[in-house]
Amino acid sequence: MSKLLAVGTVAFDAIETPFGKTAKILGGSGTFVGLAASQFGIQTGIVSVVGGDFPEAYLTMMNDKGINTDGIEIIKTGKTFFWSGRYHNDMNSRDTLITELNVLEDFKPVVPERFKDAKIVMLGNLHPLVQASVLDQMTVKPTLIVLDTMNFWMNIALEELHAVLKRVDVITINDEEARQLSGEYSLVNAAKKIHEMGPKYVVIKKGEHGALLFNEGNMFFAPALPLAEVFDPTGAGDTFAGGFCGYLAKTEDISFENMKNAIIYGSNLASFCVEKFGTERMQDLTTSEVTNRLQAFKELTQFDIKIS
Amino acid sequence: MSKLLAVGTVAFDAIETPFGKTAKILGGSGTFVGLAASQFGIQTGIVSVVGGDFPEAYLTMMNDKGINTDGIEIIKTGKTFFWSGRYHNDMNSRDTLITELNVLEDFKPVVPERFKDAKIVMLGNLHPLVQASVLDQMTVKPTLIVLDTMNFWMNIALEELHAVLKRVDVITINDEEARQLSGEYSLVNAAKKIHEMGPKYVVIKKGEHGALLFNEGNMFFAPALPLAEVFDPTGAGDTFAGGFCGYLAKTEDISFENMKNAIIYGSNLASFCVEKFGTERMQDLTTSEVTNRLQAFKELTQFDIKIS
Repeated sequence: MSKLLAVGTVAFDAIETPFGKTAKILGGSGTFVGLAASQFGIQTGIVSVVGGDFPEAYLTMMNDKGINTDGIEIIKTGKTFFWSGRYHNDMNSRDTLITELNVLEDFKPVVPERFKDAKIVMLGNLHPLVQASVLDQMTVKPTLIVLDTMNFWMNIALEELHAVLKRVDVITINDEEARQLSGEYSLVNAAKKIHEMGPKYVVIKKGEHGALLFNEGNMFFAPALPLAEVFDPTGAGDTFAGGFCGYLAKTEDISFENMKNAIIYGSNLASFCVEKFGTERMQDLTTSEVTNRLQAFKELTQFDIKIS
Repeated sequence: MSKLLAVGTVAFDAIETPFGKTAKILGGSGTFVGLAASQFGIQTGIVSVVGGDFPEAYLTMMNDKGINTDGIEIIKTGKTFFWSGRYHNDMNSRDTLITELNVLEDFKPVVPERFKDAKIVMLGNLHPLVQASVLDQMTVKPTLIVLDTMNFWMNIALEELHAVLKRVDVITINDEEARQLSGEYSLVNAAKKIHEMGPKYVVIKKGEHGALLFNEGNMFFAPALPLAEVFDPTGAGDTFAGGFCGYLAKTEDISFENMKNAIIYGSNLASFCVEKFGTERMQDLTTSEVTNRLQAFKELTQFDIKIS
């Protein structure tokens, strides 16, 4: 088992969906990555920043799940990053109602000593310079560096993004963003161009339409589990990434064949995340639930054609 | 091996895509279904109607592929159904430029004697009364009746559509149409409602996002093969249906497990169809090409997680 280091936001979310609305609840990409990775019994360290208003109970909950929070800086005089959004009826699009960066505005990530040798590093969706500064602090070259990003950074920090992309092994990105970054409409061609920017592995997330993994001409596809109801999609992408990294950290095998399994695990965990508001479902998720759903993924995708 | 009877259009298409445009070329749902099914060495009969302007060479080409065209009525004084469309840059949406129904307007399908005992019947996307009249002519109850339809018939002949749906085993329908027919946004719930309308099996086609097969709580998903270029999507859905029916006719096994294979074959053949304009690619497609691509589908979807 390898250590996993994840940098990302630990935040408050307030969410409206057709099923209801929440008060300020626990959210943030780092939180979802950590909760997903905690399913694998590995050592996961989160690097982030919160304000004095962040309840200690949330940190205790994470610690109870084996998530190391030493890297979550608490700025007593500041306020925690807050995002509020409203999902449309189809759950595939949303409006951002409020974004208060607060303590995130001047975030200088500090990697705790004991995670400077983490084999797997997950760089959550933050400014490319923040992502790079985490890599600069590693004392041992990680086995696998995974980066998540979004169109926002392509628009305001494209040069810095290209610089950090040269240093990473895996990029996770959604389909529209892959098209923007590459200038290619076909996802096959987009993956090829992004591959040339640095990452050997390109993971393209298509939300309810699943995820594609590309590596030097090889392709793998994991569907999203079709669900009767998607309650709240918030955090599904981060949960997917956390499951992917967590599985690789646990198995210590970064072959393409094993990455297929990691993608399936990511999709598996994401299918739970959307069943309740925020982190609720991920907090009470048990190993046997995950294992049972793995069986559902097998039934959904595996076939046995005798080629004659 | 079972006989397959397919009713559908045999037509002229004129197509514009970002890659170019065609003159009037061979098209039609019956044509694509027949060409796909011809990959399986089964007896396939097409029921359709064309005008005196329809080149005999097209019928000869179909016969050479083992497709029986006795059920294609030729109305010497009439003109063949003609459709013209222009695809947008993303290839996922298109504008219809011309629709000339011509001989299709008064189409009265006549099932040839030797296909009245066909075990598999594919009712292509036509008026529900035309679909029903084909079933009325069968002298032996088919093992499997597959129906394709679209929003157009839901809008103008919903009652007749519901009546014929009670008589079919499998419906193939796209995602938006499944939502319209069921009034449910979630495809899982949509499939459940459509199931209650008659069909034991519901196949929801999602174009580039693959296809889902539902049957009494069981689900299977086949991705579309990610391609560098989609040249012309015309006929892909019909090719998918033809591959599905053709594989089931060949294997004579309509279990859910074998339908999984049939769905994969449908997706496999559809991935060839879009590589060239119209029927061009399907006309020169060889068995070894299909077998090789089956391997690509396996690599794309199969994984081997040891559940611990």
